[in-house]
Amino acid sequence: MAKRVIIAIDLGGTNLKVALLDLKYKILDKRNLNTQLLGKKEGLLSAIGTSIDRITQDNGFRKSDILGVGLGLPGPVDAGKGIVHFFPNIPGWKEVKLKTILQKRLKLPVFLDNDAKLMALAEYVLGNASGSANALCVTLGTGVGGGLILNKKLYRGSDNAAGELGHLPINENGPACNCGGIACLEAYIGNNRIKAQARKIFGYAITLEEVSSLAAKQNKKAKELWGRVGRQLGCALSGIVNLLNLDVIVIGGGVSAAGPVLFDTVKETLKKRAMKVQTQRIKVLKAKLGSDAGLIGAAIMVREGVSS
Amino acid sequence: MAKRVIIAIDLGGTNLKVALLDLKYKILDKRNLNTQLLGKKEGLLSAIGTSIDRITQDNGFRKSDILGVGLGLPGPVDAGKGIVHFFPNIPGWKEVKLKTILQKRLKLPVFLDNDAKLMALAEYVLGNASGSANALCVTLGTGVGGGLILNKKLYRGSDNAAGELGHLPINENGPACNCGGIACLEAYIGNNRIKAQARKIFGYAITLEEVSSLAAKQNKKAKELWGRVGRQLGCALSGIVNLLNLDVIVIGGGVSAAGPVLFDTVKETLKKRAMKVQTQRIKVLKAKLGSDAGLIGAAIMVREGVSS
Repeated sequence: MAKRVIIAIDLGGTNLKVALLDLKYKILDKRNLNTQLLGKKEGLLSAIGTSIDRITQDNGFRKSDILGVGLGLPGPVDAGKGIVHFFPNIPGWKEVKLKTILQKRLKLPVFLDNDAKLMALAEYVLGNASGSANALCVTLGTGVGGGLILNKKLYRGSDNAAGELGHLPINENGPACNCGGIACLEAYIGNNRIKAQARKIFGYAITLEEVSSLAAKQNKKAKELWGRVGRQLGCALSGIVNLLNLDVIVIGGGVSAAGPVLFDTVKETLKKRAMKVQTQRIKVLKAKLGSDAGLIGAAIMVREGVSS
Repeated sequence: MAKRVIIAIDLGGTNLKVALLDLKYKILDKRNLNTQLLGKKEGLLSAIGTSIDRITQDNGFRKSDILGVGLGLPGPVDAGKGIVHFFPNIPGWKEVKLKTILQKRLKLPVFLDNDAKLMALAEYVLGNASGSANALCVTLGTGVGGGLILNKKLYRGSDNAAGELGHLPINENGPACNCGGIACLEAYIGNNRIKAQARKIFGYAITLEEVSSLAAKQNKKAKELWGRVGRQLGCALSGIVNLLNLDVIVIGGGVSAAGPVLFDTVKETLKKRAMKVQTQRIKVLKAKLGSDAGLIGAAIMVREGVSS
């Protein structure tokens, strides 16, 4: 039998990543497309089809070598039925039966899930949550998302909508959140909120990478900004740690590149605010799989889905 | 074979309840002792032994009819090993191997767990969380505790310490909590905090029962007080609902007797603050089993423990 491969797709508001992986989840090839240049739904769908054909052929595989296609998606989905409820940051998608549509077009088994859940699955199978019975994987980006591993399984909740730790309120009153809520964690530490504050503090449109490199050089303003983010993230996490008594919190996503100042503040805040038994147990680690976690998680989903 | 019975014990900071139940979890007899009159550890242990003998004999059963003894305990315990870590409101207990001690004295199988977990188990098996895959059972009293049913099972966490929803921060800054944390939910809506505020508002040491009966008569101050409690509870619950995507929240414990004003405010707050998919799913119900939930849960634990 020829070598089998898996196609993994990670759709974000900015990039559409398409990758070819082997059955050990090693990425053999990876392509990046600009999501915003692809247009709306139809543009995206045909770009997915074309990219799959190209990456397969370019690497000397045939369609029959593909075990299946896994998609990590930036919003609430019904993973069982393969339906996209909507994407907060990509317009034009509402209750789309994406699994059915793609299976018809591609003539391949298709699996899909929320990207934060797939990142958690990847970190649990191959990354820094492996071996833990109970884990939270946090993604810090434009949105603040999460995936929970509870009793050694991806926890989905009753509508596959679990893991929205970005929408834990950290104050009774506070800024309005995109979700319609008030004072949600994401309304304080979502990418854009941090950028806006950084701009105020530094007086120009500074990037978060610059803030991080200033913080590494002990710049006081930069350290204060990341310290604030760490305290607010730590505040929400201390409630989750008390509620769920987890083994490990794995933090990934762009903002997690802020480095030690962020992680140290989160740990200090947990020590200060969370309960003793829970705090003694918890580890706080940086995601191991970096920006490939979503692709790897999508491939794991395909492999587990095909074999079950 | 003679009819078998179960002994269930619910230890609280105020009362020690001892009950005799049949295998369908019907309470055949129940006794109340004043915890504070029993003295420290040894006094409590011998009171437990004596009460079990008496309630068994008084109802015409023999020791050999007892399937086992289940204890619901007001603090963190290791249910597997049968160890009490400590009781926040009963001094003199620290790392006590209670299961071993009682099994030696009673010559009966002994099972123990945290009372909030047993209340959740009872509501899941016989009460208002039955049939739900994912549920949170909240107890509102001196402490604010909880038990989680996730994927149709009692969720324990890595140290059996899960469920501490009273220690979710609802503000970044705020009052110190008994747990050592800051601005925890319990620091706002624990019994004693509500009583202290009621005393300020009404100008005398009003009981919470009086506040509730005033609220039922549309007294403005009383309704405002319960409204505040409901908003703060709803704030914490909206984060949990977003994170865990539950089917139902069951609320019990003394404070839950406040009635519709409390429940209505919690529901309104969830509607206002929690995410759409999660909010459409969630039901908020009063606990069905009332103050007997802990006893019933303890009996369920015995039956499941003996047969497993």
